[in-house]
Amino acid sequence: MADDSVLRKPTRRLVPSVLTAMRVLGHISSEGHVRGNHVATALGLNPSTCHEVLKTLLYGGYLDYDAETREYSIGPVIATMAARSLSTDTIIAAVRPALRQWVRETQFTAFVARWLPDQTVLVVDKVESTKEIKMTLEVGQRFPPTAAALGKSFMAFMDPDELHAVLDSLELPAYTERSIGDRRSWESELQRVRQCGWSESSREFYSSTNSVVSPVFDPSGRVQFVIGSLAAATDLTDERLAEFGAKMRDLAIDVQVRLFGTAARPSGRDFE
Amino acid sequence: MADDSVLRKPTRRLVPSVLTAMRVLGHISSEGHVRGNHVATALGLNPSTCHEVLKTLLYGGYLDYDAETREYSIGPVIATMAARSLSTDTIIAAVRPALRQWVRETQFTAFVARWLPDQTVLVVDKVESTKEIKMTLEVGQRFPPTAAALGKSFMAFMDPDELHAVLDSLELPAYTERSIGDRRSWESELQRVRQCGWSESSREFYSSTNSVVSPVFDPSGRVQFVIGSLAAATDLTDERLAEFGAKMRDLAIDVQVRLFGTAARPSGRDFE
Repeated sequence: MADDSVLRKPTRRLVPSVLTAMRVLGHISSEGHVRGNHVATALGLNPSTCHEVLKTLLYGGYLDYDAETREYSIGPVIATMAARSLSTDTIIAAVRPALRQWVRETQFTAFVARWLPDQTVLVVDKVESTKEIKMTLEVGQRFPPTAAALGKSFMAFMDPDELHAVLDSLELPAYTERSIGDRRSWESELQRVRQCGWSESSREFYSSTNSVVSPVFDPSGRVQFVIGSLAAATDLTDERLAEFGAKMRDLAIDVQVRLFGTAARPSGRDFE
Repeated sequence: MADDSVLRKPTRRLVPSVLTAMRVLGHISSEGHVRGNHVATALGLNPSTCHEVLKTLLYGGYLDYDAETREYSIGPVIATMAARSLSTDTIIAAVRPALRQWVRETQFTAFVARWLPDQTVLVVDKVESTKEIKMTLEVGQRFPPTAAALGKSFMAFMDPDELHAVLDSLELPAYTERSIGDRRSWESELQRVRQCGWSESSREFYSSTNSVVSPVFDPSGRVQFVIGSLAAATDLTDERLAEFGAKMRDLAIDVQVRLFGTAARPSGRDFE
């Protein structure tokens, strides 16, 4: 999935060329190495606009350019900014032992994801399944909030106003035969997530994959990030989703205590 | 030093609001956490322009925002892009053993830096001195090419046209009493660097600091990056600069062989 494909239309006043620059960087990050004209084509940009944005990002060190292959790649400034940023690194350091423990016990890939203001969910870390053949995802990959278990754990604990705004802006797509396609069912599913503290997907996004996800709350009761796991539905079976979901929730509480010193979680919040 | 202070005026057609976004990200990265109005003040931006850029970067996950402290910080997308980027990581992985060896043997901080198209030199990795009190610098910090040893190793091996363009756009400032302030002396210093394969600073940038730097060349003969070391002039003394410089050059050759399979270095190139 190209990173930009799930970026939604902005609702507030945002700067168009900065949005374009972020789409360009997202595309190049997901492709690794790519020629300028391919960037323009892939993103449907005017070639000369795209060229100016590429030159500007190159100028600032956000991109690298290989004169021989004529390909762009992510530049050194990004890496050094990441090395200096605190928040995501702090989360990753606090969570990774828990993810490792999960993988040791289950052999299913475990991940951490954050909700972004553009209503995408970003995978920020993972610990890979130890199986030879396995389901996985990539750090940096973005999913829409309708990508089942991932989105549900964030949406279930939003303020009612924020949740309604998100739901109003979403179309619930039929990724598979089992996707929740109507809003009433989605809302009652979120109610269930609020009650049990974890969300699940039973082949709702990829037809061969099940997953469980649980939120980690900051002291103000907001979801800081979620941790989750995914596997083939033949391994993480429907019959065992509740068992693994509860296990993921307990792990999320452990992580929360380690990060914030409190196991407190918001109580179930009703609609309206 | 604020990251943006050394950014020079662009010479080609670049996108102004993308340049602004990069200045904003650079400032926030160097500050860690900062309020929006402080960003506008520090960078001399119109507050409403700055606000729009901040909102756009927040929207795309390039920034985080803490509603309690009302501070922005670097967002999760940067970290995940860095994790996926190859070039800088590849360099860091190849060079770090050499830097560690340097620090073991000398106890002086060692670093890797890259030349950016905006004519700044970016520190991309470092291994810290093991001394309790030490000279150091930060990953992500940018220096002007006139910052002595750093710039000299890049400039000495530029194509003559590129070098002249850079020298024409630079003012050689008097950072200290010992800074090289006239172009003729700077050019003959570059000639010396071409001959011996390493550059030095004898209290030319900070009045208490000496440093040695040596370039690593890619197979096409261009400087890919430099490695270097800095220390108090009382430790890395003037008398021993040549000894440490030659040692740094030998280490740079080792790194080059490991990365590119060749110890070949461009021969000294004369002016005109």
